[in-house]
Amino acid sequence: MKNSVNFPPLNPPRRLLMGPGPINVDPRVLQAMSHQLVGQYDPVMTGYMNQTMALYRELYKTKNQWTLLIDGTSRAGIEAIFMSVIKPNDKVLVPVFGRFGLLLCEIAKRCRAEVHKIEVPWGEVFEPEQIEKAIKEIKPRMLLTVQGDTSTTMLQPLADLGEICKRHGVLFYTDATASFGGNPLETDAWHLDAVSTGLQKCLGGPPGSSPITLSDAIVEQINHRKHIEEGILADHHEQGQEEMVYSNYFDLGMIMDYWGAERLNHHTEATSMLFAAYECGRLLLEEGIDNSIKRHKLHGDAVLAGIEAMGLKPFGDLKNRMNNVLGIHIPDGIDGEEVRSLLLNDFSIEIGSSFGPLKGKIWRIGTMGYNARKDCVCETLTALESVLNRVGFKTTQGAAFDAAMQVYQ
Amino acid sequence: MKNSVNFPPLNPPRRLLMGPGPINVDPRVLQAMSHQLVGQYDPVMTGYMNQTMALYRELYKTKNQWTLLIDGTSRAGIEAIFMSVIKPNDKVLVPVFGRFGLLLCEIAKRCRAEVHKIEVPWGEVFEPEQIEKAIKEIKPRMLLTVQGDTSTTMLQPLADLGEICKRHGVLFYTDATASFGGNPLETDAWHLDAVSTGLQKCLGGPPGSSPITLSDAIVEQINHRKHIEEGILADHHEQGQEEMVYSNYFDLGMIMDYWGAERLNHHTEATSMLFAAYECGRLLLEEGIDNSIKRHKLHGDAVLAGIEAMGLKPFGDLKNRMNNVLGIHIPDGIDGEEVRSLLLNDFSIEIGSSFGPLKGKIWRIGTMGYNARKDCVCETLTALESVLNRVGFKTTQGAAFDAAMQVYQ
Repeated sequence: MKNSVNFPPLNPPRRLLMGPGPINVDPRVLQAMSHQLVGQYDPVMTGYMNQTMALYRELYKTKNQWTLLIDGTSRAGIEAIFMSVIKPNDKVLVPVFGRFGLLLCEIAKRCRAEVHKIEVPWGEVFEPEQIEKAIKEIKPRMLLTVQGDTSTTMLQPLADLGEICKRHGVLFYTDATASFGGNPLETDAWHLDAVSTGLQKCLGGPPGSSPITLSDAIVEQINHRKHIEEGILADHHEQGQEEMVYSNYFDLGMIMDYWGAERLNHHTEATSMLFAAYECGRLLLEEGIDNSIKRHKLHGDAVLAGIEAMGLKPFGDLKNRMNNVLGIHIPDGIDGEEVRSLLLNDFSIEIGSSFGPLKGKIWRIGTMGYNARKDCVCETLTALESVLNRVGFKTTQGAAFDAAMQVYQ
Repeated sequence: MKNSVNFPPLNPPRRLLMGPGPINVDPRVLQAMSHQLVGQYDPVMTGYMNQTMALYRELYKTKNQWTLLIDGTSRAGIEAIFMSVIKPNDKVLVPVFGRFGLLLCEIAKRCRAEVHKIEVPWGEVFEPEQIEKAIKEIKPRMLLTVQGDTSTTMLQPLADLGEICKRHGVLFYTDATASFGGNPLETDAWHLDAVSTGLQKCLGGPPGSSPITLSDAIVEQINHRKHIEEGILADHHEQGQEEMVYSNYFDLGMIMDYWGAERLNHHTEATSMLFAAYECGRLLLEEGIDNSIKRHKLHGDAVLAGIEAMGLKPFGDLKNRMNNVLGIHIPDGIDGEEVRSLLLNDFSIEIGSSFGPLKGKIWRIGTMGYNARKDCVCETLTALESVLNRVGFKTTQGAAFDAAMQVYQ
């Protein structure tokens, strides 16, 4: 009994999370997670699984049958797709414009792909012609893109890339973790073969579940590697002819059999996270995904206006910025981490720093999901202004709030 | 807006989950999950991560520094260990006494191990001598065991195996998913190099987080394959000399860097599941792990007594049964699935069937975690008796309840 004194009940402080995510969870999602479980093969549970698939088909704007959850964080969704599709020595092309493009390279390397990357300076994105040129030279099996790279806050336009991939017989993937729900994404219209996301950004949920969608074309290729476990293999099952996937947990062939009509046992679905994913999706559909994108743009614009009115300089090419997160140059002579600490400790507001070449150079302010709201924007701008004045960066009192209000009117 | 009609708010029915897991979550754990998030590098969050490590060290009875959570279901914990340790062509030995032993073989195959299995009939377990003999012949790098295989409800004694592994220079792993918290496990005393578990059995939590622990010896071997991502690599970092792990998500080298002092970015910790894991562990420590094991034994014994008094035959070698789940032969002439359906539909009580050679042959009744309680046992026995009588299997009215009460007195 003695030991338990060292482990008090959880009592996290109230924070306003205005960084690049995770952000505050919509209270309705927290409530959904507090529902009691049902059994994993209970018709109620399999019904919820089917409903979740149908829901994310709407949100992803796709007819793809195989739209489901991977039980893990966003990175698990990426890895499930890569592991199940990429075979050793496959060529993949990755246009890198930030840290998460580098992550796609890293994960593809783990699949023993031959990884080709093209790069633009952080703060920019690619023109379709640059990508097509590289596709012609490299002839990759897959194009691996990040839609919104939070490390730079830039949004790669994807609308024209699907047509290019189709022309060259290339499978087209995007990581929409940071952008989904706050920026347009048209799975079928843009000819995407695979998309993955997470709950902890514009969907207003906690990290730990990754909704993905797969085109029929990519599913066919995955099924060539299908492998059913000995413990549950029956006479009517057919094994795939190609080399099996280098992972059991991320083998999409098996995961589809678990989510599909046969309900072949694989993992035990993470019920509470499925409840969260369902509620996130349900709330987004209720608002309407186009309305949600507009909302993210509105509050993102208000932050931008406020930041500029404060005399701060936004980072990167603004015409390609994400709606839901803004990079801000840390002014000369100001200690970025000191500002973040004062915000966190004195206001309980969190904003972000960044990675690699941008570490210590920019802050990142997110307005996403449940926190894409006027009160969050006004509180954050006002608090940041106070802190900046205290550390010696002078602003015109009230200008930031005025500029934000102008956007709202 | 029209679409949202098809997606009503969640409203799962109340079920009593008396199968092999998942089971009903302790309401205090559901409550813990409903806490609002804090940022992933907030000192409060990293504090909770450290506390969770310390807590599971107590429960695992270990001094292992690297005791942490894998963000995924129990199978994710198994795969993280295998992926990070096993190199292609490594020999591993798997003593198989049920479906989950076969699963260890499957996951090891995905790591391209040379998998050697030894088998006993389902319902039995291994003698230490059988395992030592196989170790001498095969000279594996790792011994991969299941502690409690829920498919057969048998518990493999592990106490003597660590000494054998040590003598032969073999790394010793066990999958304690189904047994942990309800049956003794002594990580350090039994010389275990790696153990993994899940929350959804005796810990009384939801599936979706896998606590693991790693000995210093196995960590040293993992670190030879250490690889830091390009996007976050700095001058002071050292990369490992051996071939990198075939997974990014499950690369324990990176996961340790994220849970360790440097907090190198990897995944975004699944905060709500961490809250669940913390609360599960906290409640177990408060009860005392030895008391929890006694509680599981008491209620498991009561089920066994009731089942035998009903004239049903328990499955397998009873001296090696798990405390928390009992296999029961489905009597001749009785349709096992009909019984399960009546229990589910008319009583809202779930019991389990089984896999492979035991499919349609046995039921499985679990008494674990929050459901290792007298009321759950009495309700389940009484309901099962009613259903059996209805489908034509006659019992002595009240004998099962009497027998269970005898155990309780």
